[in-house]
Amino acid sequence: MIYFDNSATTKPLPEVLDSYQKVAGELFGNPSSVHSFGGKVERLMQQSRHQAAQLFGVEAQEVIFTSGGTEGNNMAIKGIAFMHQSRGKHIITSKIEHPSVLEAFRALETLGFEVTYIDVNKEGKVDPDSVELALRKDTILVSIMSVNNELGTVQPVKEIGDKLKHYPKVFFHVDHVQGLGKIRMPIIESGIDLCTVSGHKIHGLKGSGALIIRKNVSLFPLLHGGDQELERRAGTENLPANVAFVKALRLTLEKQKQSSDHLSQIHQYIRWELKKMEQVIINSPYDSAPHIINFSIPGFKPEVVIHSLGEKEIYISTKSACSSREPEVSTVLKACSLDYERTSSALRVSLSYHNTIEEADSFIEALKETIEQLKETMRR
Amino acid sequence: MIYFDNSATTKPLPEVLDSYQKVAGELFGNPSSVHSFGGKVERLMQQSRHQAAQLFGVEAQEVIFTSGGTEGNNMAIKGIAFMHQSRGKHIITSKIEHPSVLEAFRALETLGFEVTYIDVNKEGKVDPDSVELALRKDTILVSIMSVNNELGTVQPVKEIGDKLKHYPKVFFHVDHVQGLGKIRMPIIESGIDLCTVSGHKIHGLKGSGALIIRKNVSLFPLLHGGDQELERRAGTENLPANVAFVKALRLTLEKQKQSSDHLSQIHQYIRWELKKMEQVIINSPYDSAPHIINFSIPGFKPEVVIHSLGEKEIYISTKSACSSREPEVSTVLKACSLDYERTSSALRVSLSYHNTIEEADSFIEALKETIEQLKETMRR
Repeated sequence: MIYFDNSATTKPLPEVLDSYQKVAGELFGNPSSVHSFGGKVERLMQQSRHQAAQLFGVEAQEVIFTSGGTEGNNMAIKGIAFMHQSRGKHIITSKIEHPSVLEAFRALETLGFEVTYIDVNKEGKVDPDSVELALRKDTILVSIMSVNNELGTVQPVKEIGDKLKHYPKVFFHVDHVQGLGKIRMPIIESGIDLCTVSGHKIHGLKGSGALIIRKNVSLFPLLHGGDQELERRAGTENLPANVAFVKALRLTLEKQKQSSDHLSQIHQYIRWELKKMEQVIINSPYDSAPHIINFSIPGFKPEVVIHSLGEKEIYISTKSACSSREPEVSTVLKACSLDYERTSSALRVSLSYHNTIEEADSFIEALKETIEQLKETMRR
Repeated sequence: MIYFDNSATTKPLPEVLDSYQKVAGELFGNPSSVHSFGGKVERLMQQSRHQAAQLFGVEAQEVIFTSGGTEGNNMAIKGIAFMHQSRGKHIITSKIEHPSVLEAFRALETLGFEVTYIDVNKEGKVDPDSVELALRKDTILVSIMSVNNELGTVQPVKEIGDKLKHYPKVFFHVDHVQGLGKIRMPIIESGIDLCTVSGHKIHGLKGSGALIIRKNVSLFPLLHGGDQELERRAGTENLPANVAFVKALRLTLEKQKQSSDHLSQIHQYIRWELKKMEQVIINSPYDSAPHIINFSIPGFKPEVVIHSLGEKEIYISTKSACSSREPEVSTVLKACSLDYERTSSALRVSLSYHNTIEEADSFIEALKETIEQLKETMRR
């Protein structure tokens, strides 16, 4: 199998699965239980939080474990909106955010919030000036992703954060789900107040992740109940998943240090080969994140291409898995003002540090064959 | 180890862990991905939902997988409140609900909702008439648990549901986390609109569970984003955890059929032995759920008893793990009008089908020793 759909989800690393299994089977106690078995579990919980904090360059009390990226994004956006609505009900995001951000904003509109959806340029970039221009006296939140999940566009997070530093009452949330382990984005230096990350996009497990919440930020919890997760997220802690998440995080950040050249090489190779194919137009900008290459084959239905590659056990995708059941046009590419030919025929290759040049080669060969075959069919 | 803290959390069954491991390692794809690998994952997802639905006696579209009990309760309560607030902002619950219900209600109060907290009698029982009496024209929700997590009190869910059938605009939510697999509670016959269950209380995994939502019930999602879980709960499906949950559910319901006598025997044995101890007062009502026995040893600090038993690797608890870090008095027992002596010295034994009479015997012996030792210390 050649798995090039790593932005949808990744294969958990064996050592991550092992950690999960071990903790789930042996340290199954409830960290909130008073007895010594609970205490043992609680200590491992704290260790995990400390290790995660170190890896993110924040304090332990700023790491809140979640059930994943969608929860992190909803918790940050609704949490700030509900907590600070008395100060203002204007919130800002971009037109090409992940559905878990966009839909949370749309839901808040139904509850009386006013949203500014920032335009992006042809490469999917947000202009930091346009964010500043959108600010109003009643603005309480700006939410911008670090890396777009369909195009791989890297947003100028630090530049936006620098501007927002002059508006201390506006909270800055970054959906870092696609950027984690792929681009450098120091949370504190970038002026970020809340930052969402997910486990299953970095060879960790589904149902795991974290929301980094700077300590001076107050928010309305999504999950009320017990006082777990520093009273920011109630519910029995999923320690095995959290331990597994921190392990995946550590291994991914190590890979980022050691293997970013390897990933760039595969990326450049695929890009180069795609560029040589006359039917193909590349949509991802030149300076995109190293793991995503989005391209269109105008006139070819993406599902047909995917199906044909799938028969060879090569897996790529159309757009975001979270919006792949929706109508045929990519709303992200449409927001970049690309024409219908491109928005309706877009494909996404998304890589991992564990992919190889040989796999890239097989993919290119298979894609060439597929295009030839489909051309034949179309001619008949 | 003698683990008698099964209401806090349970040890996952080896076969449940195996299922998790297998699906997480092999079928790691995203069910929303268009390619055939995603399709394979999607089919397993649908199978799991169908199996869960069968076990709950509802339709597949009525099963929404969640990250656990706290999410289910918050999703049900806030989801109904936010969606139907234009019709009324009055909501009803009891004084002895789990923190994930009580705190969700309190949070809604800060957003302008009005709450009636129903009193309970000395045994922790809600009177169905008092629920009906509390109904107003602007009532939109009643939330009552099936089994109290500290006392084991079984609430008259069907009687309440029967009354509420005459008020079709009032939604009925039941927190069934402690009751699942322990008492009979047919969802549809009992007139329940929303029902929360959790995986890790039935030898499944933490971070798993479901909210049953009858198909005619509309609610404001807690997690907006992709159209997963029939558009009621966004986020990449945690298929391995869901498969593991359904397995734990099936095995638990089988145990309930085959081994309820076994569980009752252990319960009765412990109750009988405790009753013979002059220092002990039993708090759980006679007709409590079979897995919970709550008792007080007036004058003895519960943490000291727990610590002493813990040295012998016998684990019991004070009150709910979700409120165990809070001040010393059990709010549940206090709501039952028990005196300070009892509310400040309460202990909970919570059993599972996998416990044995021999374990119960060892626990009773150890408790006797502990009481003797502590009496000595107190005399000095």
